Amino acid sequence: MSNKGETTRKTSRHILKLNGKKKREFLNSFDRIFSDVDGVVWARDEYIPRAAEGFKALANAGKKFSFVTNNGVRTMSEYAQRFKELGIEFNASEFVYPAKSVVQYLDSIRFKGLIYVMATDNFKNSLREAGYEFIFGPLKIIKETYSELANHIFSDEPVRAVILDVDFNMSSLNLIRAHLFLRHPDCILILGASDKFLPFAKGVDIIGPCSFAQIIADSSKKRLITLGKPGIELAEMLLKNFDIKERKRVLMIGDMLEQDIGFGSQCGFQTLLVLSGGCNLEKMQAETDPVHIPDYYADSMGDFNEFLKDFKKAEV
Amino acid sequence: MSNKGETTRKTSRHILKLNGKKKREFLNSFDRIFSDVDGVVWARDEYIPRAAEGFKALANAGKKFSFVTNNGVRTMSEYAQRFKELGIEFNASEFVYPAKSVVQYLDSIRFKGLIYVMATDNFKNSLREAGYEFIFGPLKIIKETYSELANHIFSDEPVRAVILDVDFNMSSLNLIRAHLFLRHPDCILILGASDKFLPFAKGVDIIGPCSFAQIIADSSKKRLITLGKPGIELAEMLLKNFDIKERKRVLMIGDMLEQDIGFGSQCGFQTLLVLSGGCNLEKMQAETDPVHIPDYYADSMGDFNEFLKDFKKAEV
Repeated sequence: MSNKGETTRKTSRHILKLNGKKKREFLNSFDRIFSDVDGVVWARDEYIPRAAEGFKALANAGKKFSFVTNNGVRTMSEYAQRFKELGIEFNASEFVYPAKSVVQYLDSIRFKGLIYVMATDNFKNSLREAGYEFIFGPLKIIKETYSELANHIFSDEPVRAVILDVDFNMSSLNLIRAHLFLRHPDCILILGASDKFLPFAKGVDIIGPCSFAQIIADSSKKRLITLGKPGIELAEMLLKNFDIKERKRVLMIGDMLEQDIGFGSQCGFQTLLVLSGGCNLEKMQAETDPVHIPDYYADSMGDFNEFLKDFKKAEV
Repeated sequence: MSNKGETTRKTSRHILKLNGKKKREFLNSFDRIFSDVDGVVWARDEYIPRAAEGFKALANAGKKFSFVTNNGVRTMSEYAQRFKELGIEFNASEFVYPAKSVVQYLDSIRFKGLIYVMATDNFKNSLREAGYEFIFGPLKIIKETYSELANHIFSDEPVRAVILDVDFNMSSLNLIRAHLFLRHPDCILILGASDKFLPFAKGVDIIGPCSFAQIIADSSKKRLITLGKPGIELAEMLLKNFDIKERKRVLMIGDMLEQDIGFGSQCGFQTLLVLSGGCNLEKMQAETDPVHIPDYYADSMGDFNEFLKDFKKAEV
């Protein structure tokens, strides 16, 4: 006898432990891959061994792939340079990252008005290039008096959107100010990178933008429009932009249970977790939310080299 | 017929709408008052009209009172000066505020070790004077690179307590750093001022320290030891320090439903809300959590002048 939890728990299958038939079924079950970057292609500044070769082998097997990252700290030219070094085809127009998705979202709702931004200079540049006007800050240390606080948080600027992404210099003043702008009934709240935690080094997670955004979402009671993984608004945009008809024929690859696997599940994609980034085997096996349990897993993208070699053998 | 919610909802009574008998019963039902300061004695920098006279009238009626504030931004000499101007007796040894309660708590657990502090200079001075060693910051704007971030959040300093209070210059770096210190199993997490929101101006609440503390409590999964209202640890300390035997013979007065009324209820005190600060009549009447519904309310402490005058009449 087993309880409900046991009978219904979804099982993740290691791609190299599938038998020949299952391997072929899996490989034939998807045409397109959306893949995360950090923790999949590289971890911090280290390339993940043979990950690039794994992508190239998949390309040779006829799979299309595009990258979807929450990381907007690097510039597009940095990404292009890195992918070039790895020999991975990089199509900037298909590369998805928060600043770009946010701009597309603002365009789609024909947003007019001033924006208050908590994000990196890269992110701000994307808004500027798209023709949006924004303010930010203050970026300074203030005197510890209520009148000085008042000077820095009150403003009559007609802000109609608050946008939050990774911001290395965000302060409580900024969050307090955002909360005050959001009192206007028309002011919307947009989150880019939507990580509660960011894997920063081996075994070290740091508090991510989602935790900060949640404070202002709770305090303002505004809906968080989320254009990073696993945001529903990003999912809708992706399905539309890539004209996805058969969701099950897409494979989402990533190293994070909530952001990547949760995002893929929500989109109706198949999902594959690589253990080369922010999640280890124990964590994956301890996950209880079925939405966050991957269909497949691999030690790293490097496993696809062996997977595809075996597959060819089976085909012979 | 009425539903359970209607039959059990606690009713708050305006002290001036009680009949003579009820007024006398109320006045005779408590010996000691704990009162909040901001929103009760003054609101921002404005004295609340006739509030001081209300306290003086209560003193004349034989009631002892002490003040319990979450506001550690003002120095003790500023408080002493303000109370002196108002002619309210100010007993510094009975004045309760977060920095003092935190020091008492650290003393009580014989805390040894380094502290990481996010608080005002006033708060830090209290720790310094009590002989505790602490670090804080960084208080600077950093370059937007991961290596610069790493330089500012990683540290091998042996921090064994993280303390958070009102901090005008707290940044995401500070919260990230706090989270990393809290990975040590012995590192405790202490919150002083525990307001989710701070009433800042008429109709304007700003995000308070509790919201920021909650991020690191959630991320570190540490218990939040709370030494501001409505913290359980402060309640225990107050009951002990003031040697409270009959809790029902204490009246908690304040202008906030959660911090003041919730705190008083939790201590087993009677509670009275004044509408001269962060809560209006509508908000009080809309409150559904019985712990936050006051036993009594008044427009302001000024009502006690009339209350006590009427009471004397009734006694004749």
